[in-house]
Amino acid sequence: MRFETVLIIGGGLIGSSIARAARSKTQCKTIFVADTSETACKKITELGLADGVADGPPDLFAAKADLVILCTPSGRLATKAMSIMPSMKAGAVLTDVGSVKGHFVDALDGRVRKDIHFIPGHPIAGTENSGPESGFAELFEQRWCVLTPPEGTDEAAVTDLTHFWEGLGSDVAVMDPARHDLVMATTSHLPHLIAYTLVGTAIDMETVTRKEVVKFSAGGFRDFTRIAASDPVMWRDVFLTNKTATLELVDRFIEDLTALKRAIRWDDGDKLLDSFAKTRDIRRRILDSDPD
Amino acid sequence: MRFETVLIIGGGLIGSSIARAARSKTQCKTIFVADTSETACKKITELGLADGVADGPPDLFAAKADLVILCTPSGRLATKAMSIMPSMKAGAVLTDVGSVKGHFVDALDGRVRKDIHFIPGHPIAGTENSGPESGFAELFEQRWCVLTPPEGTDEAAVTDLTHFWEGLGSDVAVMDPARHDLVMATTSHLPHLIAYTLVGTAIDMETVTRKEVVKFSAGGFRDFTRIAASDPVMWRDVFLTNKTATLELVDRFIEDLTALKRAIRWDDGDKLLDSFAKTRDIRRRILDSDPD
Repeated sequence: MRFETVLIIGGGLIGSSIARAARSKTQCKTIFVADTSETACKKITELGLADGVADGPPDLFAAKADLVILCTPSGRLATKAMSIMPSMKAGAVLTDVGSVKGHFVDALDGRVRKDIHFIPGHPIAGTENSGPESGFAELFEQRWCVLTPPEGTDEAAVTDLTHFWEGLGSDVAVMDPARHDLVMATTSHLPHLIAYTLVGTAIDMETVTRKEVVKFSAGGFRDFTRIAASDPVMWRDVFLTNKTATLELVDRFIEDLTALKRAIRWDDGDKLLDSFAKTRDIRRRILDSDPD
Repeated sequence: MRFETVLIIGGGLIGSSIARAARSKTQCKTIFVADTSETACKKITELGLADGVADGPPDLFAAKADLVILCTPSGRLATKAMSIMPSMKAGAVLTDVGSVKGHFVDALDGRVRKDIHFIPGHPIAGTENSGPESGFAELFEQRWCVLTPPEGTDEAAVTDLTHFWEGLGSDVAVMDPARHDLVMATTSHLPHLIAYTLVGTAIDMETVTRKEVVKFSAGGFRDFTRIAASDPVMWRDVFLTNKTATLELVDRFIEDLTALKRAIRWDDGDKLLDSFAKTRDIRRRILDSDPD
C-alpha cells in the first residue's frame, strides 16, 4: 500500500470510481471525498463510498492525506490545486485526472510547494454518464493512465503513484504534457467534437424529424450519440484548455472532409475507394492490440 | 410461406445473412445464390447456404424464383436488375437491399416488366465485416427494413415482401424513395463519411504515430474505427448514388463544426455548453426506443 489516506476532490464518475476501486482493491486505508455539490455529497454518503465527505473546503482532510486527487473539470483544476495546496502535508502527492495536461502544468508552473510532489495524471477511461452513482470499481481496468511529471519530480513519488494506478487495474505510461495533449486531441478530443457536431447537425435538420432520426439510428448514427452524450462541462473545458491542438486537428479534418466532398461531387470513385480502404487496417490493429 | 423459391444475387454479408435467416426461419423452400466471385461461390457452397450456387448468369435460377433479391453494391444494382429481369417468371417479386433508393428507382423508371412486381428495399442492418463468411441469421432481428414501392405497385406483393422481412425478424416501414435517402443521409451516410474522414485524418498525422493512435484509442477514437472499417466499395457507391443529400448534409456539418471551432477559438464556453447539452437528450430517446 503506497498511500494510507487518499483525498478525492470531485466525486463524479471518475472520482467515485477511484473511491470504489481503491477500496475494493485495497489500495488505501482511508478515503475522503470532497464535492461542492450537496446533492453529490449526499449520494456519496448514501453509497458509502468514503470514510469522510465534505461539501465545504476539505482542508482538514487534506492535512491527513498522503495522496490528493483532483477530479474536477479541467477548467477548475488550477484553482482547486492552488486552494488545497497550503493545507497538504509535507511529502504528500498531488495529482489529477484531467484530460488536458499542458494547460494545467503551465498554470501551476513555479507555484507548487517544494515539499509536495506534483504529478499530473490522466486515466483514459470514462463513460457517457456523470455523477457519483455512475462510477464503478472496474472503470480503470486494462485502461491506460498517463502521468506527466514535471522535470525533476521525485522518482520514488512517481513510482508510488504508478503502483497506485496499477493497483486499480491500469497500465501506466509516462509522457510529456504537450505530447499527451496532441495525442489526446487526435484520439479523443477531435472524435468527441465531431460526435457532438454530427448529432447536433442531425437534430437540427428541418426536413428530417427527430423521431425519424431516433427510429433509423441503427445505420451508424447511434454510435455517435453515445459519445455525444458525454458530460458537457467537462468537454467544454477540454476544448478550451487544449485549444491549439484541437483547432489544428479540426482544420485538418475539415480539409480532409472537403477533399472527400469534392470527390463525391466530381464522381471520383477511385479517390473515395482509396480513402476508405486505408482506414480498415487501423481497426484490425486496434483489435489485435486489445487485451480483452 | 410467401415465396417458395428465392434467388439471392450477391452472396456477401447481407445476401448470405438473408440465405441463413430465410432457411433457419423457414421463410422459403429453395434458396439459390449467384455471385460473380468464384471464391465467394466456393465459400457459399462450403457453408451449405444454398440449394444451388452460380458464378455465371443466374437465368435458370431466376426462371424458377418467386422472389429475386439483388444484394450487390448500389452502383451495380440497375445493371443487375435489367439483366436478370427478362429471365424472371411472371408474377415474381424483384427487390434489392441497397442503401440508396432514389437512384435505383430512377434508373429503372419505365423499364420494369409489367408482369413482375418491383419493390425496392433496404434492411437497415449490417456490420463492418464483408463476405459470405461474415453473415449470420440474426442480422435482421429487431432492425428496420424500409420498402419503397413505386406508385401503383400491387398491394398483395408489398404485403408478401413485408411478411418475408417480418419472417426474418425485421420491422417493416414503407417510405418514399427520396425521403428514405434524405433520412439515411442523416442517420447513416453522413456518419459513415465522417468516420472514414476522422480515422483518415488521425492516421495521416505526421506528429502522432499510428502506434500511439492504436494505443490510446479508448478515448473515443475506437468507436469511429468500427464504422470506418465498413466495406469501401459499398460505401463509395452509397455516396456517389446519394450525392445530393450527402453533399447537403456535409455542407451543414462543416458549417456547424466551423461554428464550434470559432467558439473554441474565441473562448465562447457558453456556446459550447449549449451545443453539447442538447445532444444528450437524443441518446436517451434512442435508448428508450430500444427493444433490446
